[in-house]
Amino acid sequence: MSHEYQRPVASAGLRLHLNEHTGGCSPKVLDAIRALTREQLAIYPEYDDAIEACAARLGVAPDNVLLTNGLDEGILVAAVVALRGAPAEDPYEAIIVQPAFDMYSACADGAGGRIVDILPSQDFSFPLNRLLAALTPRTRIIYVTSPNNPTGLSVSPADVATVAAAAPQAMVFLDEAYADFGGGSMVSAAASRLPNLVIGRTFAKAYGLAGIRAGALVATPGTLAPMRRIVPPYTLNACAAAALPVALRDEAYYEAYLAEVAQSKALAYEVLGRFGVPFWPSDGNFVLARFDESLGDVIGGLAARGVIVRDRSKDPGCQGCARMTTGVVAHTRRLILALEEVLCAARS
Amino acid sequence: MSHEYQRPVASAGLRLHLNEHTGGCSPKVLDAIRALTREQLAIYPEYDDAIEACAARLGVAPDNVLLTNGLDEGILVAAVVALRGAPAEDPYEAIIVQPAFDMYSACADGAGGRIVDILPSQDFSFPLNRLLAALTPRTRIIYVTSPNNPTGLSVSPADVATVAAAAPQAMVFLDEAYADFGGGSMVSAAASRLPNLVIGRTFAKAYGLAGIRAGALVATPGTLAPMRRIVPPYTLNACAAAALPVALRDEAYYEAYLAEVAQSKALAYEVLGRFGVPFWPSDGNFVLARFDESLGDVIGGLAARGVIVRDRSKDPGCQGCARMTTGVVAHTRRLILALEEVLCAARS
Repeated sequence: MSHEYQRPVASAGLRLHLNEHTGGCSPKVLDAIRALTREQLAIYPEYDDAIEACAARLGVAPDNVLLTNGLDEGILVAAVVALRGAPAEDPYEAIIVQPAFDMYSACADGAGGRIVDILPSQDFSFPLNRLLAALTPRTRIIYVTSPNNPTGLSVSPADVATVAAAAPQAMVFLDEAYADFGGGSMVSAAASRLPNLVIGRTFAKAYGLAGIRAGALVATPGTLAPMRRIVPPYTLNACAAAALPVALRDEAYYEAYLAEVAQSKALAYEVLGRFGVPFWPSDGNFVLARFDESLGDVIGGLAARGVIVRDRSKDPGCQGCARMTTGVVAHTRRLILALEEVLCAARS
Repeated sequence: MSHEYQRPVASAGLRLHLNEHTGGCSPKVLDAIRALTREQLAIYPEYDDAIEACAARLGVAPDNVLLTNGLDEGILVAAVVALRGAPAEDPYEAIIVQPAFDMYSACADGAGGRIVDILPSQDFSFPLNRLLAALTPRTRIIYVTSPNNPTGLSVSPADVATVAAAAPQAMVFLDEAYADFGGGSMVSAAASRLPNLVIGRTFAKAYGLAGIRAGALVATPGTLAPMRRIVPPYTLNACAAAALPVALRDEAYYEAYLAEVAQSKALAYEVLGRFGVPFWPSDGNFVLARFDESLGDVIGGLAARGVIVRDRSKDPGCQGCARMTTGVVAHTRRLILALEEVLCAARS
């Protein structure tokens, strides 16, 4: 595995390949950004208001929150803090429960760690026993994603707590980028009971803020402290600082998108079921489906109809699979129309 | 030394404490940001145009440029790549030519390195011989700032090249955050002849873009490669992606600010000279002045008159010193008026 993020080729069409909010951010966010002045864009941003709004939204204290330039930055600083201090010939170990976001391995490897992948079982059930068996005294960070991307399956809090208890010398990095959409959250445990649990959150997905780059790490203040020291003091940009509190407080816009996601998933399940395409019920804003040998035709056929989905066939356990964002219902209907044409053509 | 960045307390008044462009960004930048749509703010930003504009501006190829979330992110990833792979009990060494930006030590220490400070001489001349004497086989990164912050003094390219040649196992990190204002640049050497030289640039200062967070590392493609792998794939936000090409191409706005900075420095030198306050002629957009025992009264007196300057008395060699941004002439005139009052009051 190359331990690199492969940026998907940007192409024209309906972007259902990056789990973005294809309806855009809240109109109130746009207003807040357009209200910024030339002077505000030229000074280093202060963002205590964003920190407080984020803490309030997550139900933790402000000192349990470290805002980052997208969750990606949180993934980097967690890897650096967890994996530093070992010689190149005997590095600390980073366990990654696969399939998983490419940036875990890019950052863990980049921080000098040795990657230990836990490959998925056939049904993608959480590989608790194999994960526990992979722990060693050199384990320093364990990446778990719940809901998982790209499967959409959640991990039980009990399993995460078991891992955290079994590896007190390690940081359990629980990526909850999609937790707004389902599967619950462990933020309160991370803020109080489990000092080696670090939660990653993003506002890119459910709040439609991928472009403004804002994420958060949630943990105890002591656990956050070494990461806080290396996150730049002005890491959030002025637009994010203005947008985030507004987005977090626009609950109506947020709830409406969650409702659209739920409806979109039901629509997607229906068409996939009708055509006999295996899929996994998802706690995210996307659905993974196994098209097997027709995968290339499906992705190409959708693209020809102006709909971009993501080929996940190179992810462990995801051979023959594509991931489709299921957000705005009108966009899901376009996806389904195109998918019906492509799958009908494949049958005939 | 605590190896932490101390965020200056934000207070109301004319901000001459962070070397920001107090005139604001170009009006064209504001237009570009206000033209962004809700949909553009909700998707992951692509910024090939910004990379190309930056490369063209610096006179290097696009693959010599790695854009970062402000130069701060570049400082972090350089430290991580340079200092990984050593055991905690025998870390690699980071040499910092002092006085220097706090984030060098925060990131180098945070990445597991051992900090070796080179303290300044009385006149702040570049301590080449003491730096060369401090090199060891464990040296992995050497931080040099030119023009220096807070002194404003530049380092000769010959001295930087001597350091790079003497430490082939180390990265020479040359922070050129203020190079737009004077002192020359080594970007072309970094892009071609000196593979262990990495230049840090920012668009915060001369382009008035501190709020949008955009910086760049410049080096050979091979030197950049390990840093490129851990910088998140979408690290620039959508506002920065829209603003940067526009700002870089608005040469008239940029040149006008450089002219204001030159005039502001001349005005500052005049008043400081008239009152017998020692200062250092600066290649930056700021001037460091030594008020000695009246430092507290000067900073307090300026603040009482609505002008904020930066106490630098805790920086090595900077006892009794304040740093004042000298940018927009109208703002410098306000500074000077207030300074004259404060210094006259101190005399009487």
